[in-house]
This record gives sequence, C-alpha cells and structure tokens, in this order.
Amino acid sequence: MYSIILVSHSKKITDGIKEMIEEMVGESDNVKISSCGGADDGRLGTNSVAILDCIEASASSDKIYIFADIGSAILSAETAIDLIDDIVIQKKVQLIDSPLVEGAFAAAIQASVGSTEEEILKEIESV
Amino acid sequence: MYSIILVSHSKKITDGIKEMIEEMVGESDNVKISSCGGADDGRLGTNSVAILDCIEASASSDKIYIFADIGSAILSAETAIDLIDDIVIQKKVQLIDSPLVEGAFAAAIQASVGSTEEEILKEIESV
Repeated sequence: MYSIILVSHSKKITDGIKEMIEEMVGESDNVKISSCGGADDGRLGTNSVAILDCIEASASSDKIYIFADIGSAILSAETAIDLIDDIVIQKKVQLIDSPLVEGAFAAAIQASVGSTEEEILKEIESV
Repeated sequence: MYSIILVSHSKKITDGIKEMIEEMVGESDNVKISSCGGADDGRLGTNSVAILDCIEASASSDKIYIFADIGSAILSAETAIDLIDDIVIQKKVQLIDSPLVEGAFAAAIQASVGSTEEEILKEIESV
C-alpha cells in the first residue's frame, strides 16, 4: 500500500486533487490519498503539525510519498518529516520533487495498478 | 496586461489556485487570473466552450496564457484555441507546457511585477 500526501497553501487545491485522482483512478487498495493543504483554520497557509498528522495516519503504508507545490509548502513538509519520532515511519517517507497535480496523479495511477516503487518513481520523473 | 487561464478537470483545483495566487501576489493591474476547471455542471471534467468563454473574456489582454494539468485538460484547451474565431485574439493565446500550479504561480509573480513576456516565459521554464 502506498500513501500519497498532498501539501499546498490551499486546502481547496489538495481537496480537488484528491477528489480528481479518486474519481479517475477509482477505488484501489493499493493507494491512499490524503489532502493536507491549508493552515489549521482552513485559511491559506501550511501547517507542519497537520502534515505530521497525515504522515502518522499513513503509518501502516509501505511507502509515504509527499507532494508539495511551492517554496514554503515544501519547507513545511520537510519540517513535518523532521518532527517524526518513529524512525520506522520516517524511513517510509519521501518528499517528491515533482509538480503537485501532475506528479501525484502519475504516482496514483502507477500505484493503483500495483507497480513497484521503482516504476512509480520512474513515472513521476517522466512527468 | 497578462491573462492566466487555469484548466483542470477539477473546478476546486483551479478555484484554489486562483485564490492562492491572488492572495500571494496581491492586487495587480498587470495580471488577471481565470478559473476554468470542471465540466459545465461543475462536476469533474473539462469543457472547451467554457475555456473559449474564458479566453474571450480576456480578449483585451496583451497575452493570454493557458495552463492545464493532465492529458484531456490539455486537449480541451487546444480545442478551445481552435474554436477562436478572431485571429487577433487567437494570436494572443499561448498554451503553456508547464506544471499547472507551479507554472501559473511563477507566471503570475513575474507578470505582477511588470516583467516582459520573455522574462515570464523564462521564469516558467525554470519551474
């Protein structure tokens, strides 16, 4: 099982991506999408603690890929990764250097059809 | 004045990007953002006629940049461009090969500070 965590200043953006991927990819036991955009009050901003919560909620996955859009969203994701206490979970997490919408979509498609980690990362790179 | 038209299957995604850019870039007479995501009933999908309407509503701009996320959103934008009757408007339109969120954000920042077309396109390429 792969987890995909979406990070942006805008919850609307990450909710929209989750919705689009889930409709296009369909139900799959291989991939779980989490929308972690916005500040904790739902306004524009990022929140490392909320991202950490999303990571911990995905702890049972084999791999946890984080996609973030611009500068400070990427920084918040990095901070969240630093905040992980459990080294086993931390090792599962990878912050992906890829466009948010296009990368997450490509990863979800690959993950849903049972691709290997290598195949998923190769597909993301080709985006 | 530059226009940026956002195309995706999800209106939530394009509304979120417009909102994020407008808050981060602030009010600017140099750039206008249009959210053209979703099918005409607001559900997931794309709509070439709605994209054409967005283009025509931006006809007074000097340049109209269209950003789209995945496969069929790009195809719908191409169809909308083909549907433009007025050759003067058609010449202003450019479908940008760039990530949707990151590219539109970079373009808006550059446009808002009065950059030239060349500078904007260079910034988008570096995304």
